[in-house]
Amino acid sequence: MDRAEIDKLIETLEQGQLHDSLPAGQARSEDIAQALGALDEDARDLVLGLLDDTKAAEVLAASDENVQEDMAPRLTRERLVRLLDEMDPDDAADIVAHLPEDAQATVLAGLEREHGNEVRQLQRYEPESAGGVMTTDVVAVETSATARDALMHVGAADQPEVIGTVFVVDVGGRLVGVVSLKDLLTTDLETTVGGFMDTDVISVGVDEDQEEAARLVDHYGLTSIPVVDAAGHLKGVITVDDIIDVLEEEASEDMMRMAGTAVTHPMTETVMARLRARAPWLSITLFGTFLAGLLLEFIERTWFASQVDQLVRSVADVGGDKATAYKMLLYYIPLIGGMAGNVGTQSSTIMVRGFATGEVDPTRPRRVLGDEMLLALMIGVASGAIVGVLVGMTHPTMAGLGVIVGAALPCAILCAAAAGTLVPFACHKIQVDPAYAAGPFLLTLNDLAAYVIYFWVAVTLMGSLGLVVP
Amino acid sequence: MDRAEIDKLIETLEQGQLHDSLPAGQARSEDIAQALGALDEDARDLVLGLLDDTKAAEVLAASDENVQEDMAPRLTRERLVRLLDEMDPDDAADIVAHLPEDAQATVLAGLEREHGNEVRQLQRYEPESAGGVMTTDVVAVETSATARDALMHVGAADQPEVIGTVFVVDVGGRLVGVVSLKDLLTTDLETTVGGFMDTDVISVGVDEDQEEAARLVDHYGLTSIPVVDAAGHLKGVITVDDIIDVLEEEASEDMMRMAGTAVTHPMTETVMARLRARAPWLSITLFGTFLAGLLLEFIERTWFASQVDQLVRSVADVGGDKATAYKMLLYYIPLIGGMAGNVGTQSSTIMVRGFATGEVDPTRPRRVLGDEMLLALMIGVASGAIVGVLVGMTHPTMAGLGVIVGAALPCAILCAAAAGTLVPFACHKIQVDPAYAAGPFLLTLNDLAAYVIYFWVAVTLMGSLGLVVP
Repeated sequence: MDRAEIDKLIETLEQGQLHDSLPAGQARSEDIAQALGALDEDARDLVLGLLDDTKAAEVLAASDENVQEDMAPRLTRERLVRLLDEMDPDDAADIVAHLPEDAQATVLAGLEREHGNEVRQLQRYEPESAGGVMTTDVVAVETSATARDALMHVGAADQPEVIGTVFVVDVGGRLVGVVSLKDLLTTDLETTVGGFMDTDVISVGVDEDQEEAARLVDHYGLTSIPVVDAAGHLKGVITVDDIIDVLEEEASEDMMRMAGTAVTHPMTETVMARLRARAPWLSITLFGTFLAGLLLEFIERTWFASQVDQLVRSVADVGGDKATAYKMLLYYIPLIGGMAGNVGTQSSTIMVRGFATGEVDPTRPRRVLGDEMLLALMIGVASGAIVGVLVGMTHPTMAGLGVIVGAALPCAILCAAAAGTLVPFACHKIQVDPAYAAGPFLLTLNDLAAYVIYFWVAVTLMGSLGLVVP
Repeated sequence: MDRAEIDKLIETLEQGQLHDSLPAGQARSEDIAQALGALDEDARDLVLGLLDDTKAAEVLAASDENVQEDMAPRLTRERLVRLLDEMDPDDAADIVAHLPEDAQATVLAGLEREHGNEVRQLQRYEPESAGGVMTTDVVAVETSATARDALMHVGAADQPEVIGTVFVVDVGGRLVGVVSLKDLLTTDLETTVGGFMDTDVISVGVDEDQEEAARLVDHYGLTSIPVVDAAGHLKGVITVDDIIDVLEEEASEDMMRMAGTAVTHPMTETVMARLRARAPWLSITLFGTFLAGLLLEFIERTWFASQVDQLVRSVADVGGDKATAYKMLLYYIPLIGGMAGNVGTQSSTIMVRGFATGEVDPTRPRRVLGDEMLLALMIGVASGAIVGVLVGMTHPTMAGLGVIVGAALPCAILCAAAAGTLVPFACHKIQVDPAYAAGPFLLTLNDLAAYVIYFWVAVTLMGSLGLVVP
């Protein structure tokens, strides 16, 4: 690490990223963790080397995934084990998962026995399941415990998180109720918790998606949610700070997928990883639009040939000047494509976000399709009329041009709104993330549909409206 | 309310929206609140009429804003006052804010004195500020209080939320520390809290944006954040369930703004309100693309006239057939526009989301511009080469077409990436929400830039590369 790097480190730690100005040596772990993200490996080594084990464990647990992935293998086995022993089992499990397979076994063997078992147990769950984000540090008592027992349990608990509830289990370990600290403090200390616990506990299954846990916490305004196995045994708890991470991640995922890049936190990835993440979606656009160009050329040559000949004459200011006619049509392609693209994106964004917040039921497209089509019809007719008149006024010698543009626009908009509304539902049905579909795929599709509609409407209308210049 | 409505009500309450099957009469307040959203006014009256005051207050507090706006004025003043007295002051203040001005005064006068004063005080803050989302029900003790005093305070507190912390204030009411319930339970009950409190308290100013409060809670993994005035006096607390709402709302806002519709929860708005929300952004696209059409026509006539004449001959399979040449150029417009639009949207989405999650510093565009431009260059050169070869292979008789498309593509992509990266930073600087700029405005701009670049590159390159067919 050279002088410039050290300056950058000091600058990052002292000015840029910290919330309050703190005395030296008192920077908060979360701030140090954020600062690590901007540093190179040598600087990260230096920072972690300066911290004692407790602080270093906090910093490593609070760091971005790619910082953990980078730093964990660079620590000596002895120090890594010491840091992991200081962490919550769920944070330790996440970091162990980043190690090479053989290193995982050695490190796990080094952990304190009970702690190591908890970490091993957590590793069995899918990373995006409720089990994968929960912590096993959970404060629970049996129904026969007194309020005094429960309060002593809280005092003795390992959990560093702020806790306001104690879970109650039966003799078999099944979750049967919950008591709040407030209730424990106001009741006679010798009362058994089974007598005044709240039995209406909202819990989530250990194999359920983390999104379901987040949805429940959000909907019921909880500060934590217990996690149970299929038989109802209490396995752990997800606290609200993890839920916030899940919600943030889901929102980021939806937005990044709609933009056609699979990486949720692009700034922490290398340029090559970001290129790989974007490439599939850009390829869809590239080959989709290229093939469409060939298709349009083919259709135009074989199907429209004679009609286009007529059309071209109808929009030409000089009868028969095909070049001018094509040019004129060409100038309004961005208008048709842009309007269709925007309306389609609006519809699909509303659906994708509606699925995420629970405002739109993904199994009932008919509930929302009517409103979206009505909106698209109003938008299409209004904008078609406005643009038709504007084009007509600015091109008085070209009889058909305003009519072509004004008539094609509502058709293209209706088509884009229908696709934008229905494609997310179809994706949900075939279990593809609708956010992917609402991105470059749909935008390219809408662009092409608009383009075909533009020419098709033009050719069709010109004949039947008798606007073709003979 | 007719039979069908009642059936719908029962179906909604019993099947659709409930998490678990609960015995009749035991539906959770949040579930009833969600069901209310799908019902008409008569059905809502009926449901609220069936509930006792405590339950009705919970349901009303948990309802969507538009349900509250609709229902509050329909209740008798007496019942509304009773329900408001049951609520947290922050929920009550939100509902009072929906009433007509004269009704607000009457209702506030009816509330229990202290509760009414708290509600009045909360009404003074901006709805989107920390003061606007906090509750004044906060558990605080002075530094001289003993652990026993603090625990008794928690037991006596009005706050229905689960609480794990007690705030500590000095004799002047200024926030000076925090103690956790766990610490209170493990310490000697006669110790004064001033002796073992944690003085490193993260707080937020009463007039700061709710987003800042959410950012701090998220970053430091808190379960609540105290709110203080300019002099440091403890005014209230924001709990994490309100923070989740803020984060969800911010994510929705960003997505909706990028899609060009200002309404965050479109499904709860009328079709006309949704039309009004979309209209400004669609108008930008409509008039932007229309004016661009005119501009292109003008440029082409006055500036390019002779060069285009040459160009047209260079791409025409039959020398001098202008119509065919224009058609050929036209078929690749969706490709150029689509690729530029996608890359630009990717860049702007990454910036907007990066600002929101703190991964991108909105005051330092240079930190990210390099990477984005490098990515765009690689994407542009690769896709330009691929498409140039493909077009050349499929159109062997048209010498210039592949070169035009292949050379214009990287230029358009670089331009779109630069705009997609820098426009959000510029918006942040002039204090416009970057999400607005990253939507239809930027997409339209990128489309048009791509279009101009396509023709400009074509005209320029053709001459200098000597590819013009004489």
